[in-house]
Amino acid sequence: MSDTNELVQRYLAAWNETDAAARQAVLAEVFAEDAVYTDPLVSVKGRDGLDATIAAVQGQFGGLVFSLGGAVDAHHDIARFTWHLGPEGAEPIVIGFDVAVIGDDGRISQVLGFLDKVPAGI
Amino acid sequence: MSDTNELVQRYLAAWNETDAAARQAVLAEVFAEDAVYTDPLVSVKGRDGLDATIAAVQGQFGGLVFSLGGAVDAHHDIARFTWHLGPEGAEPIVIGFDVAVIGDDGRISQVLGFLDKVPAGI
Repeated sequence: MSDTNELVQRYLAAWNETDAAARQAVLAEVFAEDAVYTDPLVSVKGRDGLDATIAAVQGQFGGLVFSLGGAVDAHHDIARFTWHLGPEGAEPIVIGFDVAVIGDDGRISQVLGFLDKVPAGI
Repeated sequence: MSDTNELVQRYLAAWNETDAAARQAVLAEVFAEDAVYTDPLVSVKGRDGLDATIAAVQGQFGGLVFSLGGAVDAHHDIARFTWHLGPEGAEPIVIGFDVAVIGDDGRISQVLGFLDKVPAGI
């Protein structure tokens, strides 16, 4: 379970990493190469697709920080968790919820994402 | 979206169907043959595995009814929803949460399930 917590934290670290090379390194560590990522706004396959998605989100929400919104609930090879996006230490502007599937190699193979709070006009 | 609601309702109907042949018919309608179902207590592949799981749960919670606990939130090929298990019209004894992935043929190919409320001693 602590491994899964760490994996989720590293996954959120990828969303916060604005240096392209560093972000790709974190994604390679936590995300299977052919992993599938789907949220309400995008559905992509592979690390490159997720990397481009993260870069676009960072462009839209510059300066805001992703953080874990509560405990990670994990069993078998799956985990669910809520995440926040907002100014550091302040009320989140976006609240999302992901279910991650973890492959045999310990990396995330699939993310199924939903949104619980979005700013008006997004 | 209404199709997804209907699919989820039919999926819950399978959990409520105590006649084995009728349940298998509903499962064939809503669940891909090689679908994967994982919740905190079991991880099975294929309709037969899910059918056996449902039969076991019905044996444990005889007379209780599965119902949708709120709106189905769906996008792309995925949906999340909360379900209740309890006496008809009364406070649920078990509350669960599923994310379902829907295949190209419109049937559920994957269920990732979690529990939000469980009775003591289960």
